[in-house]
Amino acid sequence: MSYYSPSIEKLVEAFEKLPSIGHKTAVRLAFHILDSSQEETNEFINAIQSAKANLKFCSKCFNISDTDPCPICANEKREKSTICVVEDVKDIIAMEKTHEFKGVYHVLHGSISPMNGIGPEDIKLKELISRLNPEEVKEVILATNPRVEGEATAMYISKLVKPLGIKVTRIAHGIPVGGDLEYTDEITLTKALEGRREI
Amino acid sequence: MSYYSPSIEKLVEAFEKLPSIGHKTAVRLAFHILDSSQEETNEFINAIQSAKANLKFCSKCFNISDTDPCPICANEKREKSTICVVEDVKDIIAMEKTHEFKGVYHVLHGSISPMNGIGPEDIKLKELISRLNPEEVKEVILATNPRVEGEATAMYISKLVKPLGIKVTRIAHGIPVGGDLEYTDEITLTKALEGRREI
Repeated sequence: MSYYSPSIEKLVEAFEKLPSIGHKTAVRLAFHILDSSQEETNEFINAIQSAKANLKFCSKCFNISDTDPCPICANEKREKSTICVVEDVKDIIAMEKTHEFKGVYHVLHGSISPMNGIGPEDIKLKELISRLNPEEVKEVILATNPRVEGEATAMYISKLVKPLGIKVTRIAHGIPVGGDLEYTDEITLTKALEGRREI
Repeated sequence: MSYYSPSIEKLVEAFEKLPSIGHKTAVRLAFHILDSSQEETNEFINAIQSAKANLKFCSKCFNISDTDPCPICANEKREKSTICVVEDVKDIIAMEKTHEFKGVYHVLHGSISPMNGIGPEDIKLKELISRLNPEEVKEVILATNPRVEGEATAMYISKLVKPLGIKVTRIAHGIPVGGDLEYTDEITLTKALEGRREI
């Protein structure tokens, strides 16, 4: 049984559909909207609508951007010879925050996952291969997530790319900085051992 | 420095303005919107817009409702002789969930708080007094929050209502069911002692 008016109920349900929003937070958000001025609500709706209307995929790297090509692909200072392959647009942000990577990206928009019925043709893989002109591209860095699907995807891509004579690398696995040996799982620790370097 | 496209940035900022939404959740929600179909996004926006457009205050009790009077005031089975005074619309829901209260409500939309510059004229107090026809209303239950402002508001209202010859009661303070004596603060425990009943 519902204790709310139908319009509140629908608003709460709308918020509950968002990720990481439970019922109580949805109620709080719904009442926040009701308490907001019409102007604030319009601003909120406009932000959603214009994001949906303006954003598109970069035709080169499949980043989401207001412009095509995206600012990274359009930036002449970025080295087009190094392509970092990531699963998701958010991974680009994570990489950019390091300020270390000067190359360009390619967003797969997913990873190969036969369990979930996602094959190589369901991600932006052929788009990656078609970018790989060996005269231009010198290195492909595979920065897919260190999970089963990400590893499988990295393996699959490396088998496709190596025959083109392009260097293929995988980002390192290991203990996160600030992490604790005691609480590190065995697989990560094994990877950290395997990837040890002389100092 | 922002790593996002302007439209994403604005969408993230819009979500960040909502209560209990931090930056990381705002980013997750923004990308959820971008990943959603246009239809899903329209549904979400419609829920917000129709809630803002349809919901109004009940002219009797100041509950938020699609209809005026609200379903509780319009329900003939509810006893109009007992009015439960609450601070907020959400408090009505909390009371309704008990299934114990058969009377009607009055929402103050706040509590008297001189520290924050909120006086008796800033809440729906005169609207409450104007409802109190002693021939109709037999009891006013003060269910404001057990905080300084709520207590002060309850005291203030009781002083206004008692001279009208209407019974005024205050909800009980005490240890919550399932609570732990060990972890109960002294003030609550004092109130629980004061409110002890013979069994």
